[in-house]
Amino acid sequence: MKLSQGVEWGLHCAMLLAQVPPGGLMRRDALASHFGLPEAYLAKHLQAMTRAGVLYANSGPKGGYRLARAPESVSALDVVEAIEGTAAPFICQEIRQRGTGASSSEECRRPCLVNTMMDRADEAWRASLRSVTVAELVTQLPDSVRTRNEEMLPRLAH
Amino acid sequence: MKLSQGVEWGLHCAMLLAQVPPGGLMRRDALASHFGLPEAYLAKHLQAMTRAGVLYANSGPKGGYRLARAPESVSALDVVEAIEGTAAPFICQEIRQRGTGASSSEECRRPCLVNTMMDRADEAWRASLRSVTVAELVTQLPDSVRTRNEEMLPRLAH
Repeated sequence: MKLSQGVEWGLHCAMLLAQVPPGGLMRRDALASHFGLPEAYLAKHLQAMTRAGVLYANSGPKGGYRLARAPESVSALDVVEAIEGTAAPFICQEIRQRGTGASSSEECRRPCLVNTMMDRADEAWRASLRSVTVAELVTQLPDSVRTRNEEMLPRLAH
Repeated sequence: MKLSQGVEWGLHCAMLLAQVPPGGLMRRDALASHFGLPEAYLAKHLQAMTRAGVLYANSGPKGGYRLARAPESVSALDVVEAIEGTAAPFICQEIRQRGTGASSSEECRRPCLVNTMMDRADEAWRASLRSVTVAELVTQLPDSVRTRNEEMLPRLAH
């Protein structure tokens, strides 16, 4: 089980965009160079975040990205699901209904208990990420990083 | 993010082996046909579970598998980690230290907050699976399935 690199990229970009002055947009190349990321590959993740309603994108020469909502209203889970999707990582193949030991359809009216348990664990993971907002993450940055961003972002954003 | 099919196989095999009479072993081909699984592929997962100390394996003509410990002492997480490994699904690439916005090593003395948050979510997932034992899963099987296994397993195991 492995998460895409895009999860780290998306979360850091969301935190940076949360610090852009209200109404400002940050260009994709500025985001990419801020974190030393390949712009073409970052573009895919930014598009996914835009489709998921986490980012607002404005195309054209004055184009760029900002958070689509207040950072208090964007959870870490919103970003992670934008990149990774919302599908559960466990796919039940219903092996309880296969083979010489197959359960009857009568015995399978309730969901398989293995599936139920795996879904519960997945929900614990999502609940943990849902409980953190992008705004909270920004407050946890070192003061010096936040101060530097406050000075730099009005120049970088437009 | 996706879990291997082996997670479902391993959990169902562990539940079945928990119902084998004390001291009995179940052969690999019997396990495979009980769940209609390809034996060669199942073998890899049974070996992983044996290496992880979840199963005891006895090779030779009278060989087979049983749980290495009482089913009350085997958690669902033990089985899942035997199959999937214990590595965290999020790998921090420390992008906070890259690019034009790179933080100094001074600012990076504490682990990245994104990494910390992702590890906390992973631990919530593992804690959920750690809280369930194979013995508890067996008690949640439909009564008719458990009764059938009790009748069948003394014949299948040796």
